[in-house]
Parts: sequence; C-alpha cells; structure tokens
Amino acid sequence: MGGNPLRDERDRRLPRIAGPCGLVLFGVTGDLATKKIMPAIYDLASRGLLPPGFSLVGFARRDWDDQDFSRIVHDAVREHARTEFREEVWAQLSDGLRFVSGEFSDDQAFARLRRTIEELDERRGTGGNHVFYLSIPPRYFGDVVGQLKANGLAEDSGSAWRRLVVEKPFGHDLASARELNEVLEGVFPAEAVFRIDHYLGKETVQNILTTRFANEMFEPIWNSRYVDHVQITMAEDGGIGGRAGYYDGIGAARDVIQNHLLQLLALVAMEEPTSFSAESLRVEKQKVLESVSLPRRLDLAAARGQYAAGWAGGEKVAGFLEEDGVRKTSTTESYAALRLDVDTRRWAGVPFYLRTGKRLGRRVTEVAVTFKRAPHLPFGPHATEELTHNALVIRVQPDEGMTLRFGSKVPGTALEIRDVTMDFAYGSSFAEASPEAYERLILDVLLGEPPLFPRQREVELSWQILDPLIAHWADRGRPEQYPSGGWGPAGADALLQRDGRAWRRP
Amino acid sequence: MGGNPLRDERDRRLPRIAGPCGLVLFGVTGDLATKKIMPAIYDLASRGLLPPGFSLVGFARRDWDDQDFSRIVHDAVREHARTEFREEVWAQLSDGLRFVSGEFSDDQAFARLRRTIEELDERRGTGGNHVFYLSIPPRYFGDVVGQLKANGLAEDSGSAWRRLVVEKPFGHDLASARELNEVLEGVFPAEAVFRIDHYLGKETVQNILTTRFANEMFEPIWNSRYVDHVQITMAEDGGIGGRAGYYDGIGAARDVIQNHLLQLLALVAMEEPTSFSAESLRVEKQKVLESVSLPRRLDLAAARGQYAAGWAGGEKVAGFLEEDGVRKTSTTESYAALRLDVDTRRWAGVPFYLRTGKRLGRRVTEVAVTFKRAPHLPFGPHATEELTHNALVIRVQPDEGMTLRFGSKVPGTALEIRDVTMDFAYGSSFAEASPEAYERLILDVLLGEPPLFPRQREVELSWQILDPLIAHWADRGRPEQYPSGGWGPAGADALLQRDGRAWRRP
Repeated sequence: MGGNPLRDERDRRLPRIAGPCGLVLFGVTGDLATKKIMPAIYDLASRGLLPPGFSLVGFARRDWDDQDFSRIVHDAVREHARTEFREEVWAQLSDGLRFVSGEFSDDQAFARLRRTIEELDERRGTGGNHVFYLSIPPRYFGDVVGQLKANGLAEDSGSAWRRLVVEKPFGHDLASARELNEVLEGVFPAEAVFRIDHYLGKETVQNILTTRFANEMFEPIWNSRYVDHVQITMAEDGGIGGRAGYYDGIGAARDVIQNHLLQLLALVAMEEPTSFSAESLRVEKQKVLESVSLPRRLDLAAARGQYAAGWAGGEKVAGFLEEDGVRKTSTTESYAALRLDVDTRRWAGVPFYLRTGKRLGRRVTEVAVTFKRAPHLPFGPHATEELTHNALVIRVQPDEGMTLRFGSKVPGTALEIRDVTMDFAYGSSFAEASPEAYERLILDVLLGEPPLFPRQREVELSWQILDPLIAHWADRGRPEQYPSGGWGPAGADALLQRDGRAWRRP
Repeated sequence: MGGNPLRDERDRRLPRIAGPCGLVLFGVTGDLATKKIMPAIYDLASRGLLPPGFSLVGFARRDWDDQDFSRIVHDAVREHARTEFREEVWAQLSDGLRFVSGEFSDDQAFARLRRTIEELDERRGTGGNHVFYLSIPPRYFGDVVGQLKANGLAEDSGSAWRRLVVEKPFGHDLASARELNEVLEGVFPAEAVFRIDHYLGKETVQNILTTRFANEMFEPIWNSRYVDHVQITMAEDGGIGGRAGYYDGIGAARDVIQNHLLQLLALVAMEEPTSFSAESLRVEKQKVLESVSLPRRLDLAAARGQYAAGWAGGEKVAGFLEEDGVRKTSTTESYAALRLDVDTRRWAGVPFYLRTGKRLGRRVTEVAVTFKRAPHLPFGPHATEELTHNALVIRVQPDEGMTLRFGSKVPGTALEIRDVTMDFAYGSSFAEASPEAYERLILDVLLGEPPLFPRQREVELSWQILDPLIAHWADRGRPEQYPSGGWGPAGADALLQRDGRAWRRP
C-alpha cells in the first residue's frame, strides 16, 4: 500500500471518527457560525464522530467569558442542530468550550489563545491538533494567520497537526485570489489549507460522481454524441437580505458561479478519476476547468440583471437598488447567466448554461442534462409533436433526488407520444438521513481528508474563466431589471433562444 | 405518399372510428366471449368508435333467439365492461344484436347466417363489411370457413370486405400450425386473417417500441456491449382452473412461450423499423425470430415443472396432477423456463431467459433488461459490495409501468453505494385510462389495421424455435414438482446459476 497516491484502498463504508483535536473559530457571531458551524459540530458529537476531548474555542472582539460563549453555542445548537438535543452530548461538548476575547491585531489576545490551546492539550487531550476556522472577512486573514504563526500555532510539530479552514469568497478576481492565497499559504502549507465550498458537502453533489461512475447506464450516453446541452441552475427566492455590505460590488457571478456552479460543472463534465482520492479528483476537475472557455462574443454569451420591486411569495418586496445598503448607482448583478463550452473530445459542441439569481420564482438548485432527440422517429408525422428532449435532472436542493424525463405512449387506441418522468427521491429511498454539508466537511477537516475541498489551482482557474466576463460587464452600465418572483431578465431567455433552446422552468 | 408500403404518413393521434361493419362471433358462451370480446365491443361503442349501425351476430349451437343472446351480451357487458353502463349506448348496440342457432356443419344454419347478414346490410347499413371471429376450438375452423366460403361470405366483393379473426393456439407445433393455416388461408386471403395475441394489444407492450425508439437514452445502451442478459417472465398465481381439457397435453411452453413471450422477446430485441406500419414491424420481428436459437444442450438450457399440492394465497390448493381432468400420468409442464440466444450483431452473447408458470408467488408479467456492471468501479474495495446490476424493468401487468434500478450513494459521511429505483407508473402519469387489449385489437380489425397481429410466418418461426425443446421433453418422463406459491422448480434456478446469474423475484 501507500505507493500510489492516486489509489485509496481504505474501506470507506466504516464510520470515520476523528482523533484527538480541537477547533478554534474566528468570527463567532456571524450567520454561518451560529446557523451552520456550531450546529454541525453538535451533530457530529451527537453522532459519536468527535473525540471525547474535542474542544471548541471562540475568538472574537466581544467582551465575553466562557459562559457567555457557551450560551451562544447552546442557543445556536438548540435552534439549528439537525439531530435531537441530548443533555449528555451537550454536557460533554460544553466542557470543552472556551472563549478568547480580542482584536485580530492584538498580540496579547493571541498569546491568550496559545495558552488556552496549551491548557486544552493538557487538560482535554487535544494533543496539539487544532483547526483554525476563519469565519471572518478576508481582509483580516493576514492578521490572523500572522498571529498564529508568531505564536507557533501554524506549523505541525511532531505528530501534532494544524489546519486552516477558509470560506469563500476566495478573492474577487484572479489577482486578488492569488494575493489572498499568498497570505494563507505563506504561513500554512498548501495541504493544511481547506477551502470550503459547502455545495461539495451536499449528498446530491457527491452523488453526481457516484451516479455517473457506479452505473453502466449513464456514462455511455454522457457525451456530445447524445447530450444536447447541460443547464446548471441555482435559483434563490429571497433577495440579498442583510448582506448588502458584502453583496454590492460582488454580485451573482462572483458569489455563486465562480464557486458553486463551476464546481458542479466540473463534477458533471469530468472524466472518471482513477480513484476517489483527493489527488485523483483534483486532477480531473482541473482538467475540466482548464478546458472551459467563454464564447468570444461576450455580449451574446451572457446576461445579467437586477431584481425590480414587486411581489414575491405574496409579499411586496423592494428592488435590488432600493435595498438598504445598496448604492443607488450600483451596477452589481443579482442575476447572472452564461454559456460555457468545454473544449474536450467528450464535450465539444455541447453548451453548458449556468444561471443564478435572487428573487426568482422558487428556491432550487439543479443540474439538467438534456439529451438530443432520437436521430429518427419512426412514428409518423404527428405522433411526437408533444415530445421534447430526454433529460436527467439532478435535484441538488430542495427535494433532493433525480428525475428522468422520457417519452411514452399515451394510453389509448391512437399513437401519441408524450413526456413522462421517473423519479428517485432520497427521502423515500433511504432510511438514512442526509447529514448537513457542514457536518461532512468539518468532519473531513478533522480527519484530514481533502477530496471535497477545492484546491487553489481550481479557484484560480475559475477566476480565469469569469474575469473576462466581469470586466466586460464593468464597462456596460446598469444591468437589465427583472421582475421579482419571475425567472430572470429577458436577456437570459434571448441567450438560449439564440441557440434554439430554452431554460427549464424548474 | 402511397408509394412506399413501409411508410405510413397518417396522423395517428386522430381518433380512429370504424366505418360501417358488423361482427359475427362463433362461440358465444366461452369465457373469452363473455369476459373480453362482448365487453370490449360495448366499450368501443361507449367511446364512440363504432359506426352507428354496427351489428353483432352470435352463432352457436344453443337453441336461442335474439332476445336470449341479447340477455347474454347484456349480462357480460354489465359485469365486465371497463366503461360505465349507459342505457343509450346499450340501446343502440342491442338494436344490432342477432343470433343464429346451428351446428358448424349445418348448411341450413349458415344459409340463415347469410340471410341475417344480408338483412343487416340492408336495415343497418353494415355495407357488406363483416368480421368473422372464431372464438371456438381450432378443430371446427375447417367447417366454419368452408361454410363461409360456400355462402359467399369469405371474399371481398367490390368495396365490401370480409375478415377472419382467430385466437391462439395457432397449432401445437410447426406442422399443425401449417395445416391450420392452410385451412384458413385456403379460404381467406392472408391479409384478411387476423391472429390475436392479446399481449400485443396491451399498452405496456406497445410502449416497448415507443420507449426504445422515441427516446435517445435507451437505444445507445440496448445491445450486447451494455446489456448482460434479459429476463422475460409471465407468472400466474392461479392453477389451471377449469382448463384441464385444453391445458393437459399443451403445457406452459406452447400456451405462453410460443406466443406471448416470444412476441415480447421480438419487441425487445428487434431493430428499429422504418415506420410503424404492419409491414415494417413484421419485417423486423421476423428477423429477430429467424435469429433466435436454442442452445445445443437442451438439458442445460431449459427447465420444466408441475406444481405440487400446497398453499397459495392462504388456501390449500391441489397439485397439477390432482386437478380435475388432468391425467394422473400427465407429463404436461405447468412451468417452463429456457435460455434463448439471438444471433445478431446487436445481441450475440446476451442470453434471453424466458419463464412462465402457474401457481407461482405472484401474478406478474415483466421484461427485465439487466445491464452489465460498470467496467471499473473507482470507489475503493468495499463501497460497492451491495451494488448489483443496473436494470430497466418493464412491468407489463399489473401495476403497469417501468422501473429503473441503479446505484446511488447512501446518505452519510461514509462512501457506500446501494441499489435504488426510479419509477414510472401509467396510473399516476396519465389522466387517460388504458383501454383493454381487446378494445384495441377488435378496433384494429374493424379498421383493417394489421400492425399488432402476428403473421403466419412469425407463428411458424416460433414453433420452429420451440419444437426441438418440446420433443426433447417428450422423452424425459415426469417434470420436476415445484411448491405452489413459490417461484418454480429448482431446475430453473440451476439453469441461471450455471450462467452465474439468478432470476429476479418480481
């Protein structure tokens, strides 16, 4: 064993339990921390997947003590955890809660953090193994990793490991992504940096590769000979909510397409990896991203918009430009759609259409692989008038599952063929509940398993794909307005119409 | 138009309504007549698909008058029709009911039949167009068609047409099938003889071709490169009931495999027809049947059995040899299974396993196309231990529909892949109810549409396939006994085990 880094011979069905370790969370009051990270940690504890001495240290500017922090974690867990609240689980978890108060530039605070960690290593047996989770704006990353380094917390020592977790945005273009990475990988070794794209932790997303490569039915038709085009959609029904400060100036392409949708594209389009090891997956995803190209005529290959005031879900809602905190002259897009091509033997000539937007008709993320029509229809001239294209739709969320659309004879003495569907739903197919994406991803960090985390190279390739489009839009003034509660701007429909296609109404 | 007999340019979605005509039914008291034919005629009338003057003449030995026959039809319709009983439909239909009493050898009776038909042509405008439906034992066919000929009822005259309908058995081997056909086609022209295999009238069976050829997803994997084997099953939970007189000496291979199962095989295995015309379909079905071969070692390629006394559906049931009317020394099989090969470029090396039997665990007819395993599984050594083969199962009856079995990741932080299913059900997919097979087939006869009726050549080819096996069994004494309510004899399991496979439990 051990020779070939592309192979992975472990029995991946066995429960994987993290060894002794702790996690230091920077940014404990944000939505992500309270709605996702803290509940996920509880759920892992509740499932018995954390080591007994696991410890969670909060670090923030608040003037709190351990008790205050404990209450915050408790409330977050009670409200958002997936698994039942059990006192004995909480008792064990809360024993390991600590809080360190301080600015990110405060040397004393980080000295206190170091002592807290030492105390935990001694008293709770965390063994020097610590994750530093940066749930804070990227502008503070430099300060934090610098302080960690200065306090000897950034390097592995002996068998003890240190890992760094960062969340998107990984920069706002190729140049800034490289700068950010220099900050992180200037301190932590590349293999100790875990970038979270939580979409990759979703069961449905992981199942894309399983469905493709565990079966014999799909892969033979998974290429340009049979596939007409692919649509990847992440639609949100909500507006930007309280995120104007972050969102204005960023927009839909940077916020969603650069990470979630390009990662989905990579999983749908990649070749079979030699194994499911991180290295094998990275190699194949990278190959896809290196092969992706934007069409030359950017004005014809993309569309963007801003939601207008209107009605959504029975409520009157403000337009993007009227949202609190958005500049009245903002040209930031709340909707983006584009066509990409994958220039490989498998995919040449098959467009991948990506779209994402806020205030759309429904919250849904899906990948729709749309097949060509049968080359010949031997049924006479009218029998197939209502038949469209075969499609395999992977529902990432909600209603996780898959739907297959195909043509069937309408019952009756006439010959008429119409689309019907077959459906597979996780909910009704498995007794096992799906863990939250963050449970899976945090556990993987604790275990040091990198397959589900994008590497810096993937981040850079993604920016390389999008940068020309974002630059193109920068010169073009105000995006098109689109009605709240609808399916995006007319320009997005025109984008597909030019190719003789139409967006799915999911 | 018109030039190419392989093309058919009509709009097949339009309702097809039969022109002026009548039907003469020989054998009015049998199960088939009262449970299927009479109700189907009512249902067609109820759906507005029969001409206003449609007339039904019963011919039988009974000493009945029109009123007696009308009561018989009425009761059959009330009990078995699919559509609601409506007085106005019945009034119109019953106006056209006539009864002719007589032996099949009685010249006077057929003269009366001729006069009755002439009267209907005059009074109800049936226009000389008549179907003669032989729902009687084949030994009487010669008498009846001879009488029809003698009375000038067997030939078209001017625009008026005459058609003959026969039900299986079409002989009991190749020689007898040819003799029978000489009797029929000695009188009626080949294109006027409609052989009913009611399976071909079933929606699910017709949908086999639609599913294959209207879609782009299935045909690329519908060949020996991706298909491991095909299982075609018709299982009955009942015993032979009151049919001992017919069944003993015939058996499962002749009763079911020669017609229903070989026709299903032909539809699953055939190449794409140039159109859905009768001629195109015939050409392709014939090509398949000409390519089917029995393995040389018949003792290893087939299995047969007789059901033993036991329990079925919570009731104590008799064994086959104890059934009333079955000879105690009978070697007739109530279960038959065999392997067939289709020696074509598409199917070479893919076994087709056919089985049928009485007193099995459940009443079900299905076609299961079982695919190969993926050529490589990049998931590590244990992840796919519970994964079997992809399969597309066409449920002919009951619960008409299709199921696709494929592998999916089990939700959880481990990597484990298990079989799941997607389902399509007619019942929940279409508002339209499926017509009964007999409605479709009788309407096709009235319209003169032959695509769903096997030709004599197909009948002969089917016997040619089975005759060697039946001859092989004839020398082998008593079939193996199998438990009532189970899934057939051990020999049938061994048949697949020798090939490293197993029967599905449907």
